[in-house]
Amino acid sequence: MSYFKEHIEKMTGYVPGEQPKDGIYTKLNTNENPYPPSQKVLDTIRNSINENLRLYPDPIATTARVKIAEVLGTKPECVMAGNGSDDLLSIIVRSFAGPGDKIVFPYPSYMLYNTLTELQNGTPCMIDFTEDYTLPEDFVVKGAKVSFIANPNSPSGTMISPREISRLASKIDGVLVIDEAYADFSDENCLSLVERHDNILLLRTLSKSYSLAGIRFGFCIAQESLIQGMMKVKDSYNVDRLGIVAAVAAIEDQKTMAEHVVKIRKTREYLTKALQEMGFFIYPSYTNFILARCMEGVSAQSLYEELKNRKILVRYFNIRRLDDCLRITIGTQEEIDLLIKNLKELLLIGAKGIK
Amino acid sequence: MSYFKEHIEKMTGYVPGEQPKDGIYTKLNTNENPYPPSQKVLDTIRNSINENLRLYPDPIATTARVKIAEVLGTKPECVMAGNGSDDLLSIIVRSFAGPGDKIVFPYPSYMLYNTLTELQNGTPCMIDFTEDYTLPEDFVVKGAKVSFIANPNSPSGTMISPREISRLASKIDGVLVIDEAYADFSDENCLSLVERHDNILLLRTLSKSYSLAGIRFGFCIAQESLIQGMMKVKDSYNVDRLGIVAAVAAIEDQKTMAEHVVKIRKTREYLTKALQEMGFFIYPSYTNFILARCMEGVSAQSLYEELKNRKILVRYFNIRRLDDCLRITIGTQEEIDLLIKNLKELLLIGAKGIK
Repeated sequence: MSYFKEHIEKMTGYVPGEQPKDGIYTKLNTNENPYPPSQKVLDTIRNSINENLRLYPDPIATTARVKIAEVLGTKPECVMAGNGSDDLLSIIVRSFAGPGDKIVFPYPSYMLYNTLTELQNGTPCMIDFTEDYTLPEDFVVKGAKVSFIANPNSPSGTMISPREISRLASKIDGVLVIDEAYADFSDENCLSLVERHDNILLLRTLSKSYSLAGIRFGFCIAQESLIQGMMKVKDSYNVDRLGIVAAVAAIEDQKTMAEHVVKIRKTREYLTKALQEMGFFIYPSYTNFILARCMEGVSAQSLYEELKNRKILVRYFNIRRLDDCLRITIGTQEEIDLLIKNLKELLLIGAKGIK
Repeated sequence: MSYFKEHIEKMTGYVPGEQPKDGIYTKLNTNENPYPPSQKVLDTIRNSINENLRLYPDPIATTARVKIAEVLGTKPECVMAGNGSDDLLSIIVRSFAGPGDKIVFPYPSYMLYNTLTELQNGTPCMIDFTEDYTLPEDFVVKGAKVSFIANPNSPSGTMISPREISRLASKIDGVLVIDEAYADFSDENCLSLVERHDNILLLRTLSKSYSLAGIRFGFCIAQESLIQGMMKVKDSYNVDRLGIVAAVAAIEDQKTMAEHVVKIRKTREYLTKALQEMGFFIYPSYTNFILARCMEGVSAQSLYEELKNRKILVRYFNIRRLDDCLRITIGTQEEIDLLIKNLKELLLIGAKGIK
């Protein structure tokens, strides 16, 4: 006999990318930023390590909401802080969907959307992306309570235009979550749509462009009534004291973030060309990673394994539409040169199982 | 029209105690520890403020689980880390109860149990404590999926014996959560019951005895099969890098924690006697706060308000069984002397509305 609810008992949990002990691997598998957080952020956190840690944090992270609103041009009341975007995704599902309710998300995309649907015992509506990663018309599901779009998308790196997202938002029942974890690596984003659509929830995170995956801070931007209701669902003190001060400092220092983005985009172009020359198909990327499809007769899984043997970690998904691909995080120029060198060697010698 | 689920729309959220700007108030309202975190903990966190913050934390907080298991005498597999105990409480409700399911908790106790029940659209079974804060036999509810006991209890400060808890665990359907947030301030706890009962979930936190409310770290101890299943429900990276290193250092430094507990217990005795001499009834406390019932004809609410005017914050609950009481966190000796001095003055002059 199990004490668990049946739908929990039956499900398999979400499996995040490998997090090996620091320093042993060239880590190009979980889309972390290869550059360090802003020195100002590190100094700010360090200056907050004092006896005040005995006190609870501000439950609604006021200073962070005010700073985000100021920099992004919205109101603090339209901003909500989370313990990473994952915390906010979970709050959204619990706020707007119940058992049996339809929850829509594209495939292939961030698999956590499916996990969160299973956790809530909802009805997953998984809609295949077209071959070129646009959304088919049947993404608009009648009676859906929540629809998710990662934009830019992971693991494809591709992007739907804000104009198209706006069109979808008008047609969709229920709320539309635009998960913009990677938006800072693109030229466009959907921030301006929040004012025009009362059903849009826009998510951002400090984990990628701000180099702060270890801190756990994400935020949601939406019209005030949505934020107010979601506040009831979050844990009382969901973001800790150091996360709040880190967020204020990180959002304030747009310059450092932008500099890292420029470097990453440059390396992205460089890696794209190098892989294309080797024969890989590269999906157009608006993120800090690329999805590379292997040429005919080359095994992506074997490449992944041989790279791992050489202490280089990339991401391999052994699932439909991705089992011939590798997702590669854009590292430093040196890391990417090392990757290219090893890929060339493996393809040249036709290492075990690769061809 | 609302996008929210009806039960979310209807409910009012949990309201945590006031968190005013640091330093203006003598803060005796949210049971924070008046003493600073261990210097070793502060140093450890400080030494972890480096470029590794760009990397995700270990999803299962291995080093913290190992250290907790070592110090408390259990296995790492029987320990789960949370973003504060509140994170774990939410995970528990979502793992074991669904809409309509019975969730049991005593009254008056930590009101978040009721909020979590509402969030999950469960059926709350709120069972009154007896006058002397023991649990009546009808606390055992047939078919209950989750039963909560805060032990020691807040806001009463009172405690149920481990022997009685064990008896209840054997009779109760579903899981029994023993929320031991305050157990370090007592001589007894229920840790040894975990081995004997496959339905017990024991919760501890660093927020009170370890002076780390600002960091957000709680942990659950239970038999391995329960921990394994709950891992599926938690967010992938629910505890951040700094929380994990802080927990390892805090759990290791039992000496500093124990020294602070000794001081707090001494001040607790001192405050209890002083208030009894003024005429208050003091419930026996096994925690870092006391519940003081006002003498006939004295208004607890007015006392709370007048103290607040004098920049001293205590907790007042305007609800049944508590509306004639104040809950007072045990501060430093100086803070408690200040409180006593002001209470004496207010009672002597019969300040506005008090009598």
